[in-house]
Amino acid sequence: MKISIYDTTLRDGSQGAGVSYTEEDKLRIIRALDGLGADYIEAGNPSSNIKDAELLEKACKMRLKTAKLAAFVSTRRPGTDVYEDEAIVRTASLDAPVVTVVGKSWLYQVSHVLKATAEENLAMIRDTVSYFKAAGKEVVFDAEHFFDGYGDNPQYALDTVGAAAEAGADTVVLCDTNGGSLPDVIGMVTAAVKSRYPEPKLGIHCHNDLGMAVAASLEAVLSGAEQVQGTVSGVGERCGNANLNTLIPLLQLKMGYGCIPEESMRGLTRSVRYINEIMNLPFNDSEPFVGGYAFSHKAGMHIDAVRKSPRSFEHIMPELVGNERNLLVSELSGRAAVIEKTASLKPGLTKDSEEVKRALELIKERESRGYQYENAEASLMLLIREALGIRRKFYEILNFQVSINESPSGSLCTALIKIEVDGKTGITAAEGDGPVNALDLAMRESLVPFYPTMKEMRLSDYKVRVLNSTDTTASKVRVFIETTDGVRVWNTIGVSNDIIEASRQALADAIETKLIMEYGETKKEV
Amino acid sequence: MKISIYDTTLRDGSQGAGVSYTEEDKLRIIRALDGLGADYIEAGNPSSNIKDAELLEKACKMRLKTAKLAAFVSTRRPGTDVYEDEAIVRTASLDAPVVTVVGKSWLYQVSHVLKATAEENLAMIRDTVSYFKAAGKEVVFDAEHFFDGYGDNPQYALDTVGAAAEAGADTVVLCDTNGGSLPDVIGMVTAAVKSRYPEPKLGIHCHNDLGMAVAASLEAVLSGAEQVQGTVSGVGERCGNANLNTLIPLLQLKMGYGCIPEESMRGLTRSVRYINEIMNLPFNDSEPFVGGYAFSHKAGMHIDAVRKSPRSFEHIMPELVGNERNLLVSELSGRAAVIEKTASLKPGLTKDSEEVKRALELIKERESRGYQYENAEASLMLLIREALGIRRKFYEILNFQVSINESPSGSLCTALIKIEVDGKTGITAAEGDGPVNALDLAMRESLVPFYPTMKEMRLSDYKVRVLNSTDTTASKVRVFIETTDGVRVWNTIGVSNDIIEASRQALADAIETKLIMEYGETKKEV
Repeated sequence: MKISIYDTTLRDGSQGAGVSYTEEDKLRIIRALDGLGADYIEAGNPSSNIKDAELLEKACKMRLKTAKLAAFVSTRRPGTDVYEDEAIVRTASLDAPVVTVVGKSWLYQVSHVLKATAEENLAMIRDTVSYFKAAGKEVVFDAEHFFDGYGDNPQYALDTVGAAAEAGADTVVLCDTNGGSLPDVIGMVTAAVKSRYPEPKLGIHCHNDLGMAVAASLEAVLSGAEQVQGTVSGVGERCGNANLNTLIPLLQLKMGYGCIPEESMRGLTRSVRYINEIMNLPFNDSEPFVGGYAFSHKAGMHIDAVRKSPRSFEHIMPELVGNERNLLVSELSGRAAVIEKTASLKPGLTKDSEEVKRALELIKERESRGYQYENAEASLMLLIREALGIRRKFYEILNFQVSINESPSGSLCTALIKIEVDGKTGITAAEGDGPVNALDLAMRESLVPFYPTMKEMRLSDYKVRVLNSTDTTASKVRVFIETTDGVRVWNTIGVSNDIIEASRQALADAIETKLIMEYGETKKEV
Repeated sequence: MKISIYDTTLRDGSQGAGVSYTEEDKLRIIRALDGLGADYIEAGNPSSNIKDAELLEKACKMRLKTAKLAAFVSTRRPGTDVYEDEAIVRTASLDAPVVTVVGKSWLYQVSHVLKATAEENLAMIRDTVSYFKAAGKEVVFDAEHFFDGYGDNPQYALDTVGAAAEAGADTVVLCDTNGGSLPDVIGMVTAAVKSRYPEPKLGIHCHNDLGMAVAASLEAVLSGAEQVQGTVSGVGERCGNANLNTLIPLLQLKMGYGCIPEESMRGLTRSVRYINEIMNLPFNDSEPFVGGYAFSHKAGMHIDAVRKSPRSFEHIMPELVGNERNLLVSELSGRAAVIEKTASLKPGLTKDSEEVKRALELIKERESRGYQYENAEASLMLLIREALGIRRKFYEILNFQVSINESPSGSLCTALIKIEVDGKTGITAAEGDGPVNALDLAMRESLVPFYPTMKEMRLSDYKVRVLNSTDTTASKVRVFIETTDGVRVWNTIGVSNDIIEASRQALADAIETKLIMEYGETKKEV
């Protein structure tokens, strides 16, 4: 059975803290969601926001593969004629084939927030839905606060569904607007609505205030809902909306429903990380299915078992969602993980190969000095290249100076760097917001004349951890850097007593990784 | 009905990527979990890790209010005598009153990973549990892979529970080790086990690979489990463990079970953020119940509705979990708290006093820039002195320079500082292990001629946290410093784009606090 995917990343998701989109962002997200196989994309609130209206018109000109664009609008105002409601008339004139009408299902809200009578609210729903149906639209009715309303006055909540159904709504979506309903309740209530109104399709819209938006959406599907609403990575107001990154593979791979094409599923990890990149939100690597750690194994015992039989510690094959198994190399694990890593660079090595032993020694030696490679795959791969004797030297830093000068008249952070590439030297200075930023800028600028693609990379995350902090300000510092070129993401590490030096190491590894991607493992003869 | 809370942040949580604890961290986390009202704290894996054994012995000397400490150990090895299994004998000799024995419930794993017979595995469980019961321990049996095992061979999975029960296990915990089981399945299977073995208490241990660890734990409780295992903020391998931050208020406030004392619940937000701080993990502000955004409202329509009736958009009153509506994270937002702080400096102020208002404004302004005073009491007291107009100026920094020079011949970190005290100036230079250490030494040395007691203080902890890390190397850095003079301990904070400047602020506050202790609030007339 097909469950349709209704994405509201651009509308409800935009209510999330830290979320704001440019028009270009929105168009790219629409393109990506369509590529993923979403059925509906709610592209904003054009009735109240002129920018959203313009965006929607642009988006309607895109040739989309699977997705229909939806415009979001409230029911008409109390005591007015639907034909005189400007927001509604304007929404009907847009090209979007779908209109999502939001109306109230909780009588308490009707009287206390809307200040309308019970009957007038039903008329508002009926009039608005009929209007859009007459205008030739596919209509989704979002029954706001449905579950709280049902708890308070089940008959009235059902009547609002009836009003929308009677007026011809194609889908009625039960919304847990406050996110406070338990999954079992959501399942039972959905079943009750389905048995009373078998006719319009039912949908479900959950929020994550109890940490169970995905579970609750699943219960609704088991009780007859055929549409799930959610957002990429669960972005949204408060604790967010149902996370489609989890819900889609859960429904399709664990429950056997159809949601998106199989090949889109195999690109799921890449797609959602790309959309996160556009949203400029830190991606949560602990996310089910698509997170960088979702198929990671740290404990030695586990790694051993995973190799013996993946089924022992993995609930699905990671490649089904385009993710991969990641054996974290850490003190807790052994040679097995290292062999797994060397395989892509030099196939056929065994645990007795000299290169594997050398790699393991190098890793252990670094780990004893505070390096930790489980979050720094790119640095690890450089270290393994070193052990295999295939690390390429792209440039050499001859000297660098960083200085911070603070006085009542202001502050100045500068970095100066001298490098050598193929016998040619260059010197570059940069000023930054803080010493690490100055160094970051100086390093990349110094390499641009030799390697122009340096311009394409940018840091996307920077983390600092103080090790053995009881040695206080002389203690070691571990720096993690995440870098991206817009498509790929890689992670590097540096460790030193000096945070500037630790940052330099992580930056250098990030740069080297990009250089390998662009210019290859070995130097080409000219 | 009471549901007991079994915390495994220190054991299973330590398998999470990026998680590593110092011994001091672990002791502080144990203290905080006990303060929160946890019933069991799994303090590590002492059988395989000597450090964990030492820690456990130290922790057993702590006077805990509610929590019992548990040591984690595997069943005896196949084909050996339990009395000859060193790990088991050593674990029994520890002071911890509870031993958690992990054994296999999935026949597939018994044959493929353990390479033992079905009967031998049952004997291993029986022998190990009996051994610890005979040693006077409370025994928790963790049935690893229980749900996968039950799906494969329900009778055998039940037999492992039977073996543990027969040997006297006090609690049998059903573990969804791979995190791949659906909540409904977990509920049904738990009910089946409960009906077959009403006798030992049942517990539940879920992982979040489907994004439903909390929902699944809830289903198990509804089916008869009386213990939930989980971790603070859900840290753990892959996608993490069941998140206790969510599960505890969910069970207690939404379902009516008893978990922790009501006053601990009112301190929940503060407690879990404090533990995150110790773990040095970025706190997820979208977390249900305790997140900074859990009760925040962005949409204009919502804010209006929240004002009209909070019930419309909030599923519980935020103060029940010590959180608050619509404000940036602030442990101190209440005026009452500020009055409490001012009382020691200037008694008799009320919430309408100008000084209290000024202090509150200063704190809010600083918090909006990333300062956080919960762990920096000494810095807070200086800020309050400022608001009260009684902050004493002991010295002034006229200028400081920090420079780092790295070249193949070696590295040099130096700091130079010019200060003024009572019209006299002094200039001091110092060399350090890293720029922060150099600055620390220079600042204190420059003050010694004027304030000899500067020699008595030393830093005892130094922590760095990158804020809004998506701004990468130009992002803000928060530095926490703990200082001691051998008798007293105090904590200070600094925030800046520049880690050196942030460290300078925290060092300056630490020094000023020491000067007040030694030389008093106001300058004495000579």
